[in-house]
Amino acid sequence: HYGQAETENQVGVATGLAYTSVGGDTLQIEVSLTPGKGKLILTGKLGDVMKESAQTALSYVRSLSKRLNLDADYFEQHDIHIHVPEGAVPKDGPSAGITIATALVSAISNKPIKKEVGMTGEITLRGRVLPIGGLKEKSLGAHRAGLKIIIIPQDNERDIDDIPEAVREELVFKPVRSAEEVLNIALVGGF
Amino acid sequence: HYGQAETENQVGVATGLAYTSVGGDTLQIEVSLTPGKGKLILTGKLGDVMKESAQTALSYVRSLSKRLNLDADYFEQHDIHIHVPEGAVPKDGPSAGITIATALVSAISNKPIKKEVGMTGEITLRGRVLPIGGLKEKSLGAHRAGLKIIIIPQDNERDIDDIPEAVREELVFKPVRSAEEVLNIALVGGF
Amino acid sequence: HYGQAETENQVGVATGLAYTSVGGDTLQIEVSLTPGKGKLILTGKLGDVMKESAQTALSYVRSLSKRLNLDADYFEQHDIHIHVPEGAVPKDGPSAGITIATALVSAISNKPIKKEVGMTGEITLRGRVLPIGGLKEKSLGAHRAGLKIIIIPQDNERDIDDIPEAVREELVFKPVRSAEEVLNIALVGGF
Amino acid sequence: HYGQAETENQVGVATGLAYTSVGGDTLQIEVSLTPGKGKLILTGKLGDVMKESAQTALSYVRSLSKRLNLDADYFEQHDIHIHVPEGAVPKDGPSAGITIATALVSAISNKPIKKEVGMTGEITLRGRVLPIGGLKEKSLGAHRAGLKIIIIPQDNERDIDDIPEAVREELVFKPVRSAEEVLNIALVGGF
Amino acid sequence: HYGQAETENQVGVATGLAYTSVGGDTLQIEVSLTPGKGKLILTGKLGDVMKESAQTALSYVRSLSKRLNLDADYFEQHDIHIHVPEGAVPKDGPSAGITIATALVSAISNKPIKKEVGMTGEITLRGRVLPIGGLKEKSLGAHRAGLKIIIIPQDNERDIDDIPEAVREELVFKPVRSAEEVLNIALVGGF
Amino acid sequence: HYGQAETENQVGVATGLAYTSVGGDTLQIEVSLTPGKGKLILTGKLGDVMKESAQTALSYVRSLSKRLNLDADYFEQHDIHIHVPEGAVPKDGPSAGITIATALVSAISNKPIKKEVGMTGEITLRGRVLPIGGLKEKSLGAHRAGLKIIIIPQDNERDIDDIPEAVREELVFKPVRSAEEVLNIALVGGF
Ligand SMILES: [Ca+2]
Ligand SMILES: [Ca+2]
Ligand SMILES: [Ca+2]
Ligand SMILES: [Ca+2]
Ligand SMILES: [Ca+2]
Ligand SMILES: [Ca+2]
Ligand SMILES: [Ca+2]
Ligand SMILES: [Ca+2]
Ligand SMILES: [Ca+2]
Ligand SMILES: [Ca+2]
Ligand SMILES: [Ca+2]
Ligand SMILES: [Ca+2]
Repeated sequence: HYGQAETENQVGVATGLAYTSVGGDTLQIEVSLTPGKGKLILTGKLGDVMKESAQTALSYVRSLSKRLNLDADYFEQHDIHIHVPEGAVPKDGPSAGITIATALVSAISNKPIKKEVGMTGEITLRGRVLPIGGLKEKSLGAHRAGLKIIIIPQDNERDIDDIPEAVREELVFKPVRSAEEVLNIALVGGF
Repeated sequence: HYGQAETENQVGVATGLAYTSVGGDTLQIEVSLTPGKGKLILTGKLGDVMKESAQTALSYVRSLSKRLNLDADYFEQHDIHIHVPEGAVPKDGPSAGITIATALVSAISNKPIKKEVGMTGEITLRGRVLPIGGLKEKSLGAHRAGLKIIIIPQDNERDIDDIPEAVREELVFKPVRSAEEVLNIALVGGF
Repeated sequence: HYGQAETENQVGVATGLAYTSVGGDTLQIEVSLTPGKGKLILTGKLGDVMKESAQTALSYVRSLSKRLNLDADYFEQHDIHIHVPEGAVPKDGPSAGITIATALVSAISNKPIKKEVGMTGEITLRGRVLPIGGLKEKSLGAHRAGLKIIIIPQDNERDIDDIPEAVREELVFKPVRSAEEVLNIALVGGF
Repeated sequence: HYGQAETENQVGVATGLAYTSVGGDTLQIEVSLTPGKGKLILTGKLGDVMKESAQTALSYVRSLSKRLNLDADYFEQHDIHIHVPEGAVPKDGPSAGITIATALVSAISNKPIKKEVGMTGEITLRGRVLPIGGLKEKSLGAHRAGLKIIIIPQDNERDIDDIPEAVREELVFKPVRSAEEVLNIALVGGF
Repeated sequence: HYGQAETENQVGVATGLAYTSVGGDTLQIEVSLTPGKGKLILTGKLGDVMKESAQTALSYVRSLSKRLNLDADYFEQHDIHIHVPEGAVPKDGPSAGITIATALVSAISNKPIKKEVGMTGEITLRGRVLPIGGLKEKSLGAHRAGLKIIIIPQDNERDIDDIPEAVREELVFKPVRSAEEVLNIALVGGF
Repeated sequence: HYGQAETENQVGVATGLAYTSVGGDTLQIEVSLTPGKGKLILTGKLGDVMKESAQTALSYVRSLSKRLNLDADYFEQHDIHIHVPEGAVPKDGPSAGITIATALVSAISNKPIKKEVGMTGEITLRGRVLPIGGLKEKSLGAHRAGLKIIIIPQDNERDIDDIPEAVREELVFKPVRSAEEVLNIALVGGF
């Protein structure tokens, strides 16, 4: 069951790239915000590294509170649920970090994410974007899904020339150093 | 011990379809709401994936709060218990997602669920319905139990022709893309 | 060490039936209520299924709050301890569900339980009584303990004729479909 | 390192009897009460059954609150620490139940426990005293430690004649059915 | 890396004696008190027995609250961190009990501990000092570290004559029965 | 993927030295502070010893509250997240203790850390700096990363002459005994 690009720009749903034993695929990061007590719920059969990655992405987004015009107690007054379908498929690794951050900012700011954008990259607490593995396979999955723009870590730029030309020419690669650049590219209207 | 369709429309009880090593069966999802502190209790020897599926269904239902005319702190003021009899039988997987969501909405809104309806499908945080396995066996179990209408994921429509004709002709299949469609079909009076 | 029937009607103590590798026996479910913060304590070397069964019985009893004339915050203002002697003997399974519910209602309502009554049956969240195994052995244990009335699930009625006639004739079997029927039979003065 | 009887009547310290692979011995149950939030701390390398036994003893003692003239929120306003020296020696089983209850009541009521009294017996939630194993060995340990009065479960009375006469004649055995009888015998001034 | 005696009297730091597979050594118990909510933090790769020993020492110290002139809610208004360097070396056993109690009382009362004093002994909840193992090796470690006074449990007095004379003559051994005696010897100005 | 020195002085990011099976490397400690409830979040696939080291560093920093002009409830009013990229690489050991303390003080005081400074050393609760292993390899990693000043524990000074001269001459080693010295060297403007 291969992923497909969204058919509409979505709020709170970002498209990431996965690299599994059977090749590359896309995955959706869904974020739901509800009035609550500051609880973070992580579901989708996520491994420990991916869970920590989600916590890191959330803390990065919390550090943007002023820029997002959020009340000082916003994150204590809401519960955040991050879910990655499909629920029976195990997922792990840090490479969905920027995708999670993007889905969080979209849900909080109510800005849609461009449906043709996919992304992959580890995020650090201050928003640095670190390199990931499997760019070639991930790009094939992104292409199959119908994505057009792929955000990648600057340090992975050198891996682009390993991607088959037919695929490479139909995708626009956007190498970035910071999560802020990611948000600017992915959110409708920029960040 | 095979399941049977309910003899009356019930509030807070939805009928799901299970697929075990000994074939298809039905199962009941029971939901109980009590004044409380926002605790979620999950019982019935549920595996981790099914527990996460229940959390996802609950967050989806929380996102419907306005439409359900619920106070902003409704879910912090109630405890929710989701139980799946029979307590000694292990259950797992994401395919009861829409069934759990339906039982939750029924219990919260006090609307009964049609007794002749069974359903199977993974739910995502935004209410997408994802495909499941074992539709053929599940349909045999649904038929044996006396159900008449089976809600299935759109992506499983292609599996209908694998079901023996005698069974297929006595069941109405309702392929859906969203949990909202599920609620409209299953709840007495619609959603 | 085989169980014996209580010598007096007791409040907060119900007699269940167990089926172990060495045959049938009785067991006591003891419930203690104290002012507190809504904590549930389960002791007696109980397995996970039995613990979940106790949670299910408690939620069922919470759903009777109005009928029991309890304040809306009654269960948040009390701690409930459910203990099953003998503390070194492992116990598991869902078949003490109705026994736990009965002990809870007795403790909360201060109504004694008839000392000659034993019972076995899984409870669901809405008070359905589901069938159990080992009725023959359990009946022998009940008879040895001096019990007179045995409440069983309706679906186990067909197993009565497997019990030796000498035992069967000295016991009255009460097949039930709902926990409410159980309470009516077991509580002094009914429910 | 064999235990010795206390040299003075103590508040909050009761003497139990243990039965290990190297024979019988005594052990001390120490209870400390401090202003707090209702926390229960159990230390002394206790196994799960012994921890549950301590919880059961505590709930039994909580059920005596009125008789002990305690405020309704007494147990929510104090932390209770139950410790069993020696900290590196594993201990388990339910047979210290009445000893724990006695140490708790002594600490709460500030009544000393008679230094010449040892005891063994499982406690239930309503204060029943259930039989234990190893009475013969435990009695030898009690005798060696210099104890004079041994409280035992009624059901163990039949085991007294297995104890060597020389030991039996220097000990007074007090068979009991209820924890209340235990408190009456062990506390200076009775209960 | 062998321990050395402190070069100055310290507040909140007590010197204990350890006995490992490579012989005796000293270890430092560091205590830090900060305004907080009553949390106890234990670090230094401590085993379960040593953690329980720290809890027991703390409860003993809490029982001295009046004598230490502490407010009734002192321990609910402070967080206590007990750390045992070196963080990568596993430590276990109950024999640091009196050392932990001494470091706690020093930190709370702001009284320094004499730099030439080392100690070893299990503590019970009421402040009894129980015997420990490895006194010979521990004494060699204490001597090597430059300590002058060694507090030991009364029951270990008989082990002193196993220590080589050259070492024994340069150390003063102080056998004690109670933690109060320990505090009197170790704290500058006594207790 | 070898670390590089920061290109600018950073607030809340300190550079530590790691020693892995494939040689020495640098690592970044990132600290994020947000209004909250006193929660400590540790991510980056950290082992238990490193997590305890972070707790110890935090308690040390809490003990500096007055000097840092912090409100008494500062640490109960903020959540602290400590993250160590790269999220999929396991890290352990106590040698990042002083690095964590430095990143914490920088984040709290808003003082930048000098970009040319790297450091390694275990921290104790009172701010002592204990020796670490692998100084030679760590120094090679620091040199490769472009660092100029390396803070090391006093007890490791004797290991400096094991470092190849070419590397040793391009690095300035600063042996320290206390975390306060570390802060004075690493923070822009000193401590
Ligand atoms: Ca897929
Ligand atoms: Ca390349
Ligand atoms: Ca079934
Ligand atoms: Ca087909
Ligand atoms: Ca029995
Ligand atoms: Ca039959
Ligand atoms: Ca002993
Ligand atoms: Ca006998
Ligand atoms: Ca050492
Ligand atoms: Ca000797
Ligand atoms: Ca690296
Ligand atoms: Ca050297």
